[in-house]
Amino acid sequence: MTGLPEVHPNKAFGWAAIDTSGVLSPFKFSTRGTGEKDVAFKVLYCGICHSDLHMIKNDWGTSIYPLVPGHEVVGEVTEVGSKVQKFKVGDRVGVGCMVGSCHSCDNCTNNLENYCPKMIFTYGAKYYDGTVTYGGCSNTMVVDEHFVVGIPENLPLDAAAPLLCAGITVYSPLRFYGLDKPGLHVGVVGLGGLGHLAVKFAKAMGTKVTVISTSPSKQKEALENLGADSFLVSRVQDQLRAAIGTFDGIVTVSAQHPLLPLLGLLKSHGKLVVLGVPEKPLELPAFPLIQGRKLVGGSMIGGMKETQEMIDFAAEHGIKADTEVIAMDYVNAAMDRLLKGDVKYRFVIDTH
Amino acid sequence: MTGLPEVHPNKAFGWAAIDTSGVLSPFKFSTRGTGEKDVAFKVLYCGICHSDLHMIKNDWGTSIYPLVPGHEVVGEVTEVGSKVQKFKVGDRVGVGCMVGSCHSCDNCTNNLENYCPKMIFTYGAKYYDGTVTYGGCSNTMVVDEHFVVGIPENLPLDAAAPLLCAGITVYSPLRFYGLDKPGLHVGVVGLGGLGHLAVKFAKAMGTKVTVISTSPSKQKEALENLGADSFLVSRVQDQLRAAIGTFDGIVTVSAQHPLLPLLGLLKSHGKLVVLGVPEKPLELPAFPLIQGRKLVGGSMIGGMKETQEMIDFAAEHGIKADTEVIAMDYVNAAMDRLLKGDVKYRFVIDTH
Repeated sequence: MTGLPEVHPNKAFGWAAIDTSGVLSPFKFSTRGTGEKDVAFKVLYCGICHSDLHMIKNDWGTSIYPLVPGHEVVGEVTEVGSKVQKFKVGDRVGVGCMVGSCHSCDNCTNNLENYCPKMIFTYGAKYYDGTVTYGGCSNTMVVDEHFVVGIPENLPLDAAAPLLCAGITVYSPLRFYGLDKPGLHVGVVGLGGLGHLAVKFAKAMGTKVTVISTSPSKQKEALENLGADSFLVSRVQDQLRAAIGTFDGIVTVSAQHPLLPLLGLLKSHGKLVVLGVPEKPLELPAFPLIQGRKLVGGSMIGGMKETQEMIDFAAEHGIKADTEVIAMDYVNAAMDRLLKGDVKYRFVIDTH
Repeated sequence: MTGLPEVHPNKAFGWAAIDTSGVLSPFKFSTRGTGEKDVAFKVLYCGICHSDLHMIKNDWGTSIYPLVPGHEVVGEVTEVGSKVQKFKVGDRVGVGCMVGSCHSCDNCTNNLENYCPKMIFTYGAKYYDGTVTYGGCSNTMVVDEHFVVGIPENLPLDAAAPLLCAGITVYSPLRFYGLDKPGLHVGVVGLGGLGHLAVKFAKAMGTKVTVISTSPSKQKEALENLGADSFLVSRVQDQLRAAIGTFDGIVTVSAQHPLLPLLGLLKSHGKLVVLGVPEKPLELPAFPLIQGRKLVGGSMIGGMKETQEMIDFAAEHGIKADTEVIAMDYVNAAMDRLLKGDVKYRFVIDTH
């Protein structure tokens, strides 16, 4: 087992990538004492997001090793600071992609900490005190209560974990781009960790949901298990042609699905929301945008206020992530399977 | 002089392109009798838009010859049908890009006839009765009053003509994308027929306007004559870097300006509105869209209600197109100069 000098007072234990191989192994580190606005909690479950796969291998060139991944973290509060107002020992809590921000910029003052230029990522980032942040593949976390959300009792913790990144990533754009009204027709491209939650949230908001996929094999799953209203195989020209101009909005999580056919599926004034980051720039034909006053927009997770709202909405509507719960020491095998898309729909590590 | 058999009762005279050479020459045709909802008017001025250049040469493959161009048309009413309510003989009126639509689709019922799938273009299109429409490079027009706007007395007719296409094309997206609020910072890329009006409208709406150009030579013009607040030379890296993240929205009329640097200039939640149609698809990098919740959207002219609103707004704020008024028989030379961008900023034909 590798480890770090104990710069903080409290011992902690997790699994870390040590180099660009991305292989995770047991790792000892330390966490800061519970500050007056901090919440300390025992980590119970941690979801694995596709971005973890990129981070452990330093695909984006920003990783700091040793790197403890995990930004879909739920657990039970063990200690709270003297000024903590929202939480008490024993509470069920969650932490998503961020643990800090500047609290003074336009975005922060508008509850959009996720777009703050000084937003501090949950792991692999420099915290205010200069130490490196460690994620949820660990036994404990200490987080400023501003970046902690409460998990309602009726939401199972393992199914709640993926909501903290995947859930808010799809919930926020559905709200922001106004694709949350009964009667609207919303398409979801890419049925993975994000896409399956997009179907569930869009349905719960009252929209008609069509899953758009290159693969006919996902039809039964989309309609029967996820509750989509219809299914469109994007490679079948007849199906595509029949659906032209029928969508109010489409959320695409597919990294490299061409935009032109998707734009064609939109009604005038329709919105195409891109959530997956392709390696190459997309080809954007301007004419359909202009002729139909359509737009292509993005979105990245959500602010803390909206994250709590999303969690409460999920609890109210019984929205859970479909998960495969695994033991901590299965994490490397899980990463390999995730790379191949072999999971329905989210691995969640049982860390306790 | 060429001509057509007189399918309609009233003689008319204009200039038409006969073939893909695009050369315009005198041309005799006929117009329908003034129907009960029609307004007949003597054409006084007609602006030349860049799209006319494409249409006379059949660049888009949709042109019907003989083709009488002109969709920025102003004149004086000579006759009105029995059921016409808004206009009387002698009124100053204008007609823009369209003369018909279905009046029953979602777009039509929301005053967005410009997005009606059955919208009838002012020239080179099939009218309800199957005859071909002829544009404003002519002495007279007969148009359904629904597609006619009134021109207030204080707006000179020659300076009003270009508002009917170029004006509404920039006005509508400034409103629709919410770039019309005092205190916002709006960029305008491409200082031509559309761009110079975008500067004037955005200023009149109270925004801070920066002209973004590859050419430093336009600075004096932009600041002193058009009233822009600042000028950014997009090829100068220092200027570009200093302006990163400072724009609420950018309207681009440039056909092939790369999107990446423009997206970088936007604040989070900023909007890039594309109005020029490039020949090739644009390269759209997804990451800046996602990271800053930015969007790229289009817009095409505007509905009739908004076109009248735009004309009234222009009259109220003294907004006029900068024009070079020419005689009808100069039109071919003007088309050549327009192709080279040699006009400040709109040719307007004096047709009377």
